[in-house]
Formats: sequence, structure tokens, C-alpha cells
Amino acid sequence: VAIDLNADLGEGFGRWTLGDDEALLDVITSANVACGFHAGDPSIMRRTCAQAVERGVVIGAQVGYRDLAGFGRRRIDMAPPELTADVVYQLGALEAFARIAGGQVGYLKPHGALYNTAVVDAVQAQAVVDAVLAYDRALPILTLPRGVLARLAEAAGITVIAEAFADRTYQRDATLTPREQDRGVLHDAALIAERAVRIAVAGEVVAADGSTVRMHAASLCVHGDTPGAVEIARAVKQALTAAGVAVRSFV
Amino acid sequence: VAIDLNADLGEGFGRWTLGDDEALLDVITSANVACGFHAGDPSIMRRTCAQAVERGVVIGAQVGYRDLAGFGRRRIDMAPPELTADVVYQLGALEAFARIAGGQVGYLKPHGALYNTAVVDAVQAQAVVDAVLAYDRALPILTLPRGVLARLAEAAGITVIAEAFADRTYQRDATLTPREQDRGVLHDAALIAERAVRIAVAGEVVAADGSTVRMHAASLCVHGDTPGAVEIARAVKQALTAAGVAVRSFV
Amino acid sequence: VAIDLNADLGEGFGRWTLGDDEALLDVITSANVACGFHAGDPSIMRRTCAQAVERGVVIGAQVGYRDLAGFGRRRIDMAPPELTADVVYQLGALEAFARIAGGQVGYLKPHGALYNTAVVDAVQAQAVVDAVLAYDRALPILTLPRGVLARLAEAAGITVIAEAFADRTYQRDATLTPREQDRGVLHDAALIAERAVRIAVAGEVVAADGSTVRMHAASLCVHGDTPGAVEIARAVKQALTAAGVAVRSFV
Amino acid sequence: VAIDLNADLGEGFGRWTLGDDEALLDVITSANVACGFHAGDPSIMRRTCAQAVERGVVIGAQVGYRDLAGFGRRRIDMAPPELTADVVYQLGALEAFARIAGGQVGYLKPHGALYNTAVVDAVQAQAVVDAVLAYDRALPILTLPRGVLARLAEAAGITVIAEAFADRTYQRDATLTPREQDRGVLHDAALIAERAVRIAVAGEVVAADGSTVRMHAASLCVHGDTPGAVEIARAVKQALTAAGVAVRSFV
Repeated sequence: VAIDLNADLGEGFGRWTLGDDEALLDVITSANVACGFHAGDPSIMRRTCAQAVERGVVIGAQVGYRDLAGFGRRRIDMAPPELTADVVYQLGALEAFARIAGGQVGYLKPHGALYNTAVVDAVQAQAVVDAVLAYDRALPILTLPRGVLARLAEAAGITVIAEAFADRTYQRDATLTPREQDRGVLHDAALIAERAVRIAVAGEVVAADGSTVRMHAASLCVHGDTPGAVEIARAVKQALTAAGVAVRSFV
Repeated sequence: VAIDLNADLGEGFGRWTLGDDEALLDVITSANVACGFHAGDPSIMRRTCAQAVERGVVIGAQVGYRDLAGFGRRRIDMAPPELTADVVYQLGALEAFARIAGGQVGYLKPHGALYNTAVVDAVQAQAVVDAVLAYDRALPILTLPRGVLARLAEAAGITVIAEAFADRTYQRDATLTPREQDRGVLHDAALIAERAVRIAVAGEVVAADGSTVRMHAASLCVHGDTPGAVEIARAVKQALTAAGVAVRSFV
Repeated sequence: VAIDLNADLGEGFGRWTLGDDEALLDVITSANVACGFHAGDPSIMRRTCAQAVERGVVIGAQVGYRDLAGFGRRRIDMAPPELTADVVYQLGALEAFARIAGGQVGYLKPHGALYNTAVVDAVQAQAVVDAVLAYDRALPILTLPRGVLARLAEAAGITVIAEAFADRTYQRDATLTPREQDRGVLHDAALIAERAVRIAVAGEVVAADGSTVRMHAASLCVHGDTPGAVEIARAVKQALTAAGVAVRSFV
Repeated sequence: VAIDLNADLGEGFGRWTLGDDEALLDVITSANVACGFHAGDPSIMRRTCAQAVERGVVIGAQVGYRDLAGFGRRRIDMAPPELTADVVYQLGALEAFARIAGGQVGYLKPHGALYNTAVVDAVQAQAVVDAVLAYDRALPILTLPRGVLARLAEAAGITVIAEAFADRTYQRDATLTPREQDRGVLHDAALIAERAVRIAVAGEVVAADGSTVRMHAASLCVHGDTPGAVEIARAVKQALTAAGVAVRSFV
């Protein structure tokens, strides 16, 4: 049994920093590197790619809406060809830094509002799929299983990597409980680690209503921009290893 | 005898357009495509690259300062590693669109204030050179002959393509007369075409003071964003062809 | 009988221009000046305000989403307090230029996607209303009559100026026919001028289905960024004057 | 004897934060609020102005180059009218938030590279002066004493508030030792506090070479974005008070 650990990285901009990238890089196996549209700038991207390659962490393109002021967390009603072009632009820019660091872009993961929109909106999801088809159809997409993006990507012959969240609760239908709701986000490291192991080993998670939900995931998302986040990530990795789960990239 | 004709393309942004790209593409052999920092957006870059590849026009990366408000025409005192990263980012982003159009980035040309700065400032020139060395040391740089960028690029083993301006006047020392000065920019199509031919055939140009200056150039820059510019470009091409000069890319 | 003529102005950015502002200023009585978020920059705002004041044209704040790449034409799902703050920011910035030109901001008109969103979405409409309440509750809002923004603004005690479009067709329910639809936008100057007069004099417009729709409007919007637009605007003004309608600002 | 304490505030952007604004607001008497060009966004500006007014802290416009990626720390070669317009824009935007919080903009202080440039470059300094003359000639400018901006502002009849840095060392000619140099920036709270008192009480400071330099200042700048900065600011205020110096705004 094996699973990947992914986290958002390189989400600073200019003078501003966010999260403890170096600490996370020692835990994760896949780095979702911001590409400059919602966060990240060329200097940060270069450094982050170099650090990831040094540690053997796979680089993924964390593509988002062009919205620094909103950190890519506000849905923008974009025409599909514009969204496709914006995603290709970000892929190419990150690829340059991945290559000069001796690596390459190993997958794509939408960020923030684009992530959520692509799970439910066929128009924007298809625009993301079109970007991957145009850029490199061998590039896997990391997304929520059973969402619209997953379905359209698979229909287009793109590899979909199913992602689960050990620190979020789920509804009976395998969708995420909104962050704002009570217990939408978990903070207890031991509990999160236990849920991570159950997802990896048994392919299931206990939903908010107590029912057991099937949750096959090839990657677990861990967070790095909240207090205690790195400690939780470490606890998850330790628990997985202790349970005999190999923590390694899906690439 | 052969010479290349290059022009700035794809310099619109969102709702805004600039110049007649399609008309110019039928004249030039090398397109300096804006990469989104001083002008150009992903949708424009995608379209411009596709149009260039269709017509067999070579795509060059027209890299600039991150300054949409100033159109890259204002020098910014950047730390060299930041400038290097900004240039690599633009190269990678454009490469993505060149590749999906079936082409590739064939050369780099700095834009506006970065062009002028790199001709005289060793620190910023070296930062541009470092970007090419990191990204692809086989990528030629199109710049003013005998400038600092040309010298540093050659010292680093990078191919330098010397560029001349048939519609600008030169000083005795082969530097350009500032645009603002009287006769800094020429507008007479016949005169410009005649100067173009003399540069291509004889490797010389008449300077503002009447003296003859050596001007070996592998590429002539034509402009597209002023009234009558496309007509001038056509006149230059026609005159070159009539004089037996092959108009073709340097790549 | 009197009516106002308003148009979008100052919608260039840096090197890029849009429309013939000076020609329009000789026709209109109210200038919707872009405030830098979807178009316009400080230098353009300064010049546009000065030109408007010179001609006695009232300055309005044309506020939009922070989206230069999309020209404010893409709906952004913003949290209401953020939208309120963005609108206040734009109002204040424009006020500075209006004041130093010897004028003041006389009204607010949302631009593009914000205009359309505020007509139907109570959350964003209220955020715009909140901005006016915070900034200056005496500031009128120019918007589509009977829309959500009009209703919420009136409920808050803000003066609402009803706007009509002589070059757009309407549905039976007084909503606009989408631009993309056949005959969504009219181009015949004589027809547009005739419709303008009927709105001003009779308070009615012929809808797309041939029925007559009540259309009381205190201002008519004319456009300036399409070919022939200035001629249409002149024809509208001439027809109104010939029909005995006074063309003057609502302020 | 009295002196003002000023600090940079509101320098976050969107998701990103910088410094401990609330802690600083309890120490300082003048807040240099970022206006959105190098840092700060409308929501942050609104909150910062409200917090400042609540505590009776005077609001100043911390105007900078339009350069979020560079945090305004990179000199940009702007044409003077463009710089003047950019400064007016920032003043107006901040004024809106100051007014709705029940206050007003009490002074202007250039930020970062614009601060340093205006101290030595007459062209850009005059552009800043022109902005104040156009906007409100009664608005004081906070700047380094004896610099070019101070001189040109005084010549134009603008009130200049001389600023000193207790945590920076000076050269014999009263210019600042560059930050990068050894002992360019001091970190010992007791030493900084002692220097602050000497500036306030005796109008002098010990230079890097041990000589005593005249340093009449009406305001002391304290920093908030480095570890321990708030503690240093508190120590400075405490020492001033203990020495009988009234800490109050210069407005």
C-alpha cells in the first residue's frame, strides 16, 4: 500500500511569505507550486522548484485565476478559451523553472476557487482539460474524485489522481463539508493522522454523520499555512509509515 | 546576401489592441512576441504564436520589465536574480504557446527600457545572459551590436544576432539618436527602404552627421504600431527583394 | 423635457487607448470615468477629468472589478466587504482628480460585469450601495431602472438615475436583449436617434417583439469604442435637440 | 519637548500580512498607511484607517511606486507627470477611507525606493511636490531633513516634517549608512531608545565614526515588520516618556 502527500507551496509574493515551505518539503512527496497568477512570483518559483528537486519532491503546477488580490479564492466567470490560455501560460512558466532545476512538471492541480469550480462546472472544467490536452496530454490532473473535472479529464484520456483530505470532514455523498461549517476543518493531529491511515489502508473515511464513505485516494492533501500545520503533516506521515503505508509520489 | 526582418507583435492586453499583427506577419520573418509582463496576455500569445507558425515566421521572446502601466518603457532597478527569474518565467510561458502551435521559441529580444538598459548596464545585461544560460544556452539574443549585452552574451558563448534600425538615425559611434531628437525617427518609406538595402548590402549606414558608419546586421527591426508602419515595412521588404537580398530568418 | 447623455470615458491604460474621448466629450453631458480597476490609469484619469470640467461635462465614477485583463467584464465572486472597499477606493481616487480639475464626482455607475451583476444580485448590489452610503449618501447611482441595485439604492435613500440604451433592444419585461443575440445591438444611426427621442419624449421604447414598453429614463447611454460610435452619438444629440428635448446633466 | 513616532502600516495585500499593526498602533502617533501601489489593498486600508482613528493616531499617505512584486523598493524611471498622477491617485484613495473612518489624511510620506529617490533626485522629488501642490498644498511631507525633497517642498511653501531613525546609523554628513553595511541597522532596544532620546532632547546623534551630528527631527520612524520590532518601538516610547519628552503627533 502506498500514498502520496501533496501540499501547496511557493504561495508568497514579492515581500510577502506564506507557510513554511522548507519544513513541508521534508514531509511531502508532491509540491503544488503556485505559478504567479494567484500567488508565487518568478523568484519564488525558481527557489521552490530547486528545493523540491533537491529533495526528490515531485513538482506540480498549482494553477489559479489571475487574481493576486483575491489569492485565487474568488470565482471568475471566464470565457473557456481565456481560461485555457491562462492555464497553459502558468504551466509553461513553471516548466521553465522545473527544467532548470533538473526536474519537470509532473502534474496539474487547480487552486482555490478554480479547484472548487472545476469540480462542479463543466464549462470551466473542460477549459482546464483543454489546457492539458494542448500542453501535454500525458500530464495527470490531481483533483477531487467523482467531480466534474475528474469525469471530463478521464473522458479525454487524461490520468486523474484522486485526492482526499484527512483534515476535512465529508458528507455522505463524498463531497466536502464546507470549511465554514462546524467541524468543516479538523485540527487534532492524532485524529487527522488516524483518518489518513484509514483512507490509505481501507479506502474509506467516516463522514460527518457517522456513516462510512468509500474514499479511494492516491494522494492526501496536507496544509502548511496555518499554525500547527507542519506538525500535523508530520504526524500524518509518521502514522502512515507506522501503518506500513509507503509514502511516495504517484508519478 | 540575406537579412531577417523582425517586429514586435502581440502587444495588446485584454480589451486593448496595438498594431496590425496580421498585416505585419505577412512581411516579417521573425516575430518578437510580448510575454505578458509589459504587454501581451495568454490569449493573445496563443493566437500570435499560432499565426506566426502558420506563416513560417520565427517566434522570439520579447521579454520586458513587469510593468503593464508603463509598457515596459520605464527602467526598473531590479536585483539581478529577480530579473533573471522574470526573464526565465516569460521564456517558459511563451515556449508553451510556441510548442502547442507546433513551433518553438527561436530567440530572445529584450523590450523597451530593458533593451536600452541591457545595452549599457552590465549588471542587468548579465542578468539577461544568466536567464538564457539557465534556460537554454543555444538560444540566440537579438540586440544592438557592440552593446554591453552583445559583449557579455558572446563572452558566455551565446549567439548574438546584431540588429539594425532602418527607420532610426545613428550617431558617428553607431549608437542610436534618441527618439525625442529631431530626425531621431524617420518616416519617409522610400528613404527607410533605401537605408535598409544599404545596411543589408553594404553593411553601412549614413549617420546623422553625414558620416558613413559600419553597420553589420543580421536583422532589421520594423515597427507596426504607428500610422503607416505596415506600409513602410512592406516598402522595406520590397526594396530588399528588388536589390537581390533574401529576406529570411536568421535561425 | 430634458435628458442626460452619458458615455464611458478614460478607458485606456498606459500605452493603450480606447475610443475617441475628446469627440465624445463634445456630445455628452455626463462622463463615466474609469477609475483604474478595469481600465484607466492615474494619468488618463487626470487628463479626462480636466477635459470634462473644461467642457462642463459632469464626472461620474465608473467603478468596476479589479480585473484589467478582463476589462471588468467577468463577474468575480467577491465578498461584499471587499467589494464595498474596492468601490470606495475607486471613488476616492477619482475624486482627487475631479477636485484638482475644479470639479467633483457627481454620480456612480458600475461598469461591465459589475453593472450586470448589480442589476440581478442583491448581495453585490448591496455592497455597492454600502460603498455609496459610507462614502457620500448624496451621490446618485446611475443604473438600469427596476433592477436590484435600483431597488436597494432607493431603499437606502440614495438617488437613483434611470438609464436607457437607445442602441440596444429590450424585451417585453424591460430587460435588455443580450448583446450576442441577433439585433441585441443596433447600428443604424437614424433608428437609434429616433428611439432616443421616443424614450425622452414619450417615455417608451419598442421592444424586440414589437410591443411597446414603458421606459422612463433620466439618462441615455451612448457608446464610444466602436466604429461609427461618435457619429451615432452626434445623431442622437441632434435628433433630441431637434425634437425640443434639452440635453443636460441630471445633476 | 515633544516628538512624533511614525511607522509603516497596512502593508499586507490580500491573503498576505506584514507586521503587527494593532500592536504598533498602541505605540505610535502617526501611521504611514500603504495606499495600494506597493502594498495595501482597499480592505486593509479601510480597516487600518478605522483602527488609527479609534486610537487617535494620525493617518499619513505612504505613497509608493506601482510595484507590488517589488514592494516599491525598486526605483522606477517614471516621467514626472505620471509620478505626480500616481501620487495624487493614492492620496485620493486613502483620503476616502480616512474620511469614512472619521479622520483625514494628515501628511504624505514616500515609501521605499521613492523615499530614497526623492531625497537625491530633483526630478522625481519635484513630481512628488507637484502632487501635493495639486492635491492640497497644506499637506505636510515627512522626509529626511536636508534632502532634495525637503528643499524643493520648502521652496514650494509646503510644510516639511524632518524625520530621524533611531535604529539606523548616520554618516558624518547626516546621511544614512546603507542598510547592507555593518551596523547599518541597529537591533539593541536599549541603545536605540537611548539614541531616540538624544535626538528628541538634544537634537543630535552619534555618527558611525563616533562624531556627533546635528539631527533636528520632529518625528522618529520605528519599524514593525521585523522580529522584536514592536518591543523596540515600545522601549523607544517608554524611554522618551521617562526623559520627559511628550510623544505626540506633529499635526
